[in-house]
Amino acid sequence: MVRVGIVGGTGYTGVELLRLLAAHPEAELVAITSRSEAGVPVAELFPNLRGHVDLAFTAPDPDALQDCDVVFFATPNGIAMEMVPELLSRGVRIIDLAADFRLRDPAVWEKWYGVPHACPDILAEAVYGLPEVNRVAIREARLVANPGCYPTAVQLGFLPLLEQGLVDESRLIADSKSGASGAGRKAVVGSLLAEAGESFKAYGVAGHRHQPEIRQGLERVVDKAIGLTFVPHLVPMSRGIHATLYSELTAADVDLQVLFEDRYRDEPFVDVMPAGAMPETRSVRGANVCRLAVHQPLGGRTVVVLSVIDNLVKGASGQAVQNMNIMFGLDETTGLGAIALIP
Amino acid sequence: MVRVGIVGGTGYTGVELLRLLAAHPEAELVAITSRSEAGVPVAELFPNLRGHVDLAFTAPDPDALQDCDVVFFATPNGIAMEMVPELLSRGVRIIDLAADFRLRDPAVWEKWYGVPHACPDILAEAVYGLPEVNRVAIREARLVANPGCYPTAVQLGFLPLLEQGLVDESRLIADSKSGASGAGRKAVVGSLLAEAGESFKAYGVAGHRHQPEIRQGLERVVDKAIGLTFVPHLVPMSRGIHATLYSELTAADVDLQVLFEDRYRDEPFVDVMPAGAMPETRSVRGANVCRLAVHQPLGGRTVVVLSVIDNLVKGASGQAVQNMNIMFGLDETTGLGAIALIP
Amino acid sequence: MVRVGIVGGTGYTGVELLRLLAAHPEAELVAITSRSEAGVPVAELFPNLRGHVDLAFTAPDPDALQDCDVVFFATPNGIAMEMVPELLSRGVRIIDLAADFRLRDPAVWEKWYGVPHACPDILAEAVYGLPEVNRVAIREARLVANPGCYPTAVQLGFLPLLEQGLVDESRLIADSKSGASGAGRKAVVGSLLAEAGESFKAYGVAGHRHQPEIRQGLERVVDKAIGLTFVPHLVPMSRGIHATLYSELTAADVDLQVLFEDRYRDEPFVDVMPAGAMPETRSVRGANVCRLAVHQPLGGRTVVVLSVIDNLVKGASGQAVQNMNIMFGLDETTGLGAIALIP
Amino acid sequence: MVRVGIVGGTGYTGVELLRLLAAHPEAELVAITSRSEAGVPVAELFPNLRGHVDLAFTAPDPDALQDCDVVFFATPNGIAMEMVPELLSRGVRIIDLAADFRLRDPAVWEKWYGVPHACPDILAEAVYGLPEVNRVAIREARLVANPGCYPTAVQLGFLPLLEQGLVDESRLIADSKSGASGAGRKAVVGSLLAEAGESFKAYGVAGHRHQPEIRQGLERVVDKAIGLTFVPHLVPMSRGIHATLYSELTAADVDLQVLFEDRYRDEPFVDVMPAGAMPETRSVRGANVCRLAVHQPLGGRTVVVLSVIDNLVKGASGQAVQNMNIMFGLDETTGLGAIALIP
Repeated sequence: MVRVGIVGGTGYTGVELLRLLAAHPEAELVAITSRSEAGVPVAELFPNLRGHVDLAFTAPDPDALQDCDVVFFATPNGIAMEMVPELLSRGVRIIDLAADFRLRDPAVWEKWYGVPHACPDILAEAVYGLPEVNRVAIREARLVANPGCYPTAVQLGFLPLLEQGLVDESRLIADSKSGASGAGRKAVVGSLLAEAGESFKAYGVAGHRHQPEIRQGLERVVDKAIGLTFVPHLVPMSRGIHATLYSELTAADVDLQVLFEDRYRDEPFVDVMPAGAMPETRSVRGANVCRLAVHQPLGGRTVVVLSVIDNLVKGASGQAVQNMNIMFGLDETTGLGAIALIP
Repeated sequence: MVRVGIVGGTGYTGVELLRLLAAHPEAELVAITSRSEAGVPVAELFPNLRGHVDLAFTAPDPDALQDCDVVFFATPNGIAMEMVPELLSRGVRIIDLAADFRLRDPAVWEKWYGVPHACPDILAEAVYGLPEVNRVAIREARLVANPGCYPTAVQLGFLPLLEQGLVDESRLIADSKSGASGAGRKAVVGSLLAEAGESFKAYGVAGHRHQPEIRQGLERVVDKAIGLTFVPHLVPMSRGIHATLYSELTAADVDLQVLFEDRYRDEPFVDVMPAGAMPETRSVRGANVCRLAVHQPLGGRTVVVLSVIDNLVKGASGQAVQNMNIMFGLDETTGLGAIALIP
Repeated sequence: MVRVGIVGGTGYTGVELLRLLAAHPEAELVAITSRSEAGVPVAELFPNLRGHVDLAFTAPDPDALQDCDVVFFATPNGIAMEMVPELLSRGVRIIDLAADFRLRDPAVWEKWYGVPHACPDILAEAVYGLPEVNRVAIREARLVANPGCYPTAVQLGFLPLLEQGLVDESRLIADSKSGASGAGRKAVVGSLLAEAGESFKAYGVAGHRHQPEIRQGLERVVDKAIGLTFVPHLVPMSRGIHATLYSELTAADVDLQVLFEDRYRDEPFVDVMPAGAMPETRSVRGANVCRLAVHQPLGGRTVVVLSVIDNLVKGASGQAVQNMNIMFGLDETTGLGAIALIP
Repeated sequence: MVRVGIVGGTGYTGVELLRLLAAHPEAELVAITSRSEAGVPVAELFPNLRGHVDLAFTAPDPDALQDCDVVFFATPNGIAMEMVPELLSRGVRIIDLAADFRLRDPAVWEKWYGVPHACPDILAEAVYGLPEVNRVAIREARLVANPGCYPTAVQLGFLPLLEQGLVDESRLIADSKSGASGAGRKAVVGSLLAEAGESFKAYGVAGHRHQPEIRQGLERVVDKAIGLTFVPHLVPMSRGIHATLYSELTAADVDLQVLFEDRYRDEPFVDVMPAGAMPETRSVRGANVCRLAVHQPLGGRTVVVLSVIDNLVKGASGQAVQNMNIMFGLDETTGLGAIALIP
């Protein structure tokens, strides 16, 4: 059994971790912390966990967490980097669901997150936890930076094209759409049902923090600078990300369907749909799956990739558990077999 | 392994049965039939099942189904009663998710469903599949009539009060609300997102088929005629039923909280919430649970019971699997441990 | 032209007042105040008003408001009672959309709203602004207490029955459902799309502030104590209230359809639907209408009245404008002719 | 008064025409036809019209329509072209909300709509009813082809850039999103709330009928072939279109904000938002407005235009009324002043 701790369990990635770990046959939940809810039973805040999780929140405390084999950080950005060095020094492995260890360059981090990085020396050893790219490194990692939700959907869609150098990497467009849980469980007016319901809008057009993360990931693949326009939108639903990816073919006579199927044939959590298919976000709701479809509208040179994930599962907590499975030598699919809810 | 067949697998209760049975460790899916979709892989219609269910739909055929230990009917009302006698005679046990065997009196059936019953002789042996009432009879049943969605939520809420004779049984009110999947996967204008979204309405106020089903169930408990006003409403969401139940206390000095907790202490799928709680339908989304809370507003004599279920799980396919578990001597919770999705 | 001021224009009743008054041919918007948004153009906060409202928010100030003929308070409860005496003394008439002047008895107010009333002496002169009951008094009123949203829907539904003494007034049940805008434009977790979307729940079952308001209104009609159970619920939509009202007939041979049609024949904003109809909330979305239907399920003695309004229009700002029209001798329908949006 | 007829009034564009025309001070509704609903009062099908529209549907009949000054076709594609020649010959002017007269080349029409055009000789005289481009021609037109919903949003967004030759016209991308009412009031499974709710997907990626319409409109502006990738998506809401438009700047030192403001300064129904703004679809819900915002993410060469309309208003019936106003010499804004509903 892997002994697991969770720091910051009151948000959506926290409750989703709990849902997944409570059903995980090889994980034992040891501690879950929340400064604001210390003493409150977890199932009081999240009644879906009644009968499944008996723990109460405790105040965050390295001493209480040091008995864990792994600690997940489901905290707002900027918290993990303050606590991780201490926990690492005590031999605890870390999976951070926030952005603290995703960007390799501390200057880039500071630019996009507005504060200096608290432990730039550790950044270099953090492994970017996208198993479809980094599986081997994740296995040995002490510190895994779990990818952002948009970056997961966008990178998995572009990877086959860029790895084979088939498209113009200087003109990538990722028109991305997310349900409201992507904004977290924070009390802000813009996320109210009466504000975000029955409406659709773009946000962060001038620049969104997931843009540098995606760019870093894709540039590692092509080994040169890329051009990426990333526009996120808010969909009036709770869960789900749909990325519509545009790029321009530079090669001729490529069978894109075969390319995608070959690339992901052995990936347990990437599903390449049949030619002509158009995946719905609900087909992955609650499931640790990225479904992809690749199109060439009207037979032209523009490639359109459709990529859907559940932002809280393959886009966050499910991927985190997938990383844990890899790190601890478990079957990668352990505890992640749930089927999406339709309808 | 229980060998399972499903007749009529293209509706919402069908896909939900597939989702549950695909993950059930003691069930083997042998056949799934659909006249209209024969030959089509199940996962083509329901992409959430890709990688989990490899079967294709076949035409309904008693020969193909006779190797099953149990056959679920997830068909429109009136289909099962035509096929069940033949299957029973071949030794197949039946769980009917439609209404064909729920009402004991064929005259009542005909009045509410508009056609004579096709096999009134078999009605008497059908066991009403509400485990919290009929567990023992279900164990031996050849034919289980799986309860309707509203009747499950309403009966579980009223039972403790009526069993103890604590309320006036002549004046029961069940104000009930359901998500749109309750109307099934049928192409009708009234169920379109652009019709039923961002709106709320009552329907079937003059008389709804679930009223006599609920009445029959409750009358069996009190052993006399009851008075029940049942008003269903359509909620702009996909899944979930919330029943708000009103009755009037005739007894004094009753601790209703204790009453409910005692009644359901050993029930694996009924959760009595703490005093003062108000359950949300999402707390049971995808889970085979009925959550109840009991209130006396302003300390008066009116008892208000709040009862929530997922109409497709505890209100249909989950309860059907629960019945299968009972019928085949399995642990009643087998394959039914999934935790509801929040958010 | 009626010169109009609005205090507290940043909430949903505020923006709805602006929408209605901007199109009102006899009203001139003079000032709109908001402490937090002073200096900000109204249309920046509410882009639907671009090109229709040029005003900017100003700090609340009696001097600036004293040139108004009427001032609407669209503030949280407890604000109006601090400012109203001063404005009245300067000759400004008041329509308060909050609860400050709805309850006649200051002790009841304090019990439900948690603070002593700031001007109990003025309470007596406040006119409860339900035109279908109080039209004559509203005409001369200096101070109108605009009814709550639930109280409007519930009272209009029960009135014909109670006025004629046809039902048992000791056992009234008002099962009521509201969209999320009823909770206001406040940043609270429970109102997030990811919390309140795709879910349904009751709230305030132990006791809700609208219960005494409804009770007071109905008791004035029957002139004795009534028994009322009021349970509000949250519907996953933005706008709309649906009240399902239950009472028990004490009289025989009553034509309820005729009763309701007669009662509201001359009311411009109450629409009695044909026998058998079941109104949808969307049929009044954006419109100052209460639609009613009356039923006797299965021909029994229980009367079920269905009552729908848009909580922000007939349940708040539309009714406030209706009251203004009455107070200033305008045609009561002026500026209130908009047709509801379907779909 | 303009005497108005509507053919095919049972769909969403039909009821929206009725809503707008019922409030139009210069229009008189003379006849509304529906083969399937002949004899039924309009307000029975659409209760929002109770008290506003007294007409009943009649069977379509040229004799009954020939007294109209103008007839709107709110029919499925392919109906208008069968009836329009006869009506034109009787001196009735036509506004077709379907696609029958939008494409100039009958071969293109046949390719995309699957049947030969019934009156190719009339195609040439049809005026494409986008007032912001064709106002003068609309004034004299006998036959106006009202633009599609997506084409309205997309063309208004691209026009300023293409008219000035500022972007590469061979690489335009229109990532477009629509609410479910765009699919019409047709009973199809894919449009059910339980299918399209709480989910997001692309559709028509291989090729959508609005692509050639947009292309034709934009090519008329640049007078050469353009390259356009158009991907529509379905949003879980009823009303609203959001087009996210991508193109690449070929010119330097252009102030895009000024460009857009100048282009649309005198347009009553196009609103250029301030720099940095991101329009929500709800800001135009129910209103005849297109709101635009123009961005250059991270200061790069990619221009992102955000364009929102209500698909049923500026994208259909509102624009049709705008065209009627132009054709009959009325103030273009007559009857179109309604403010969008927020929330």
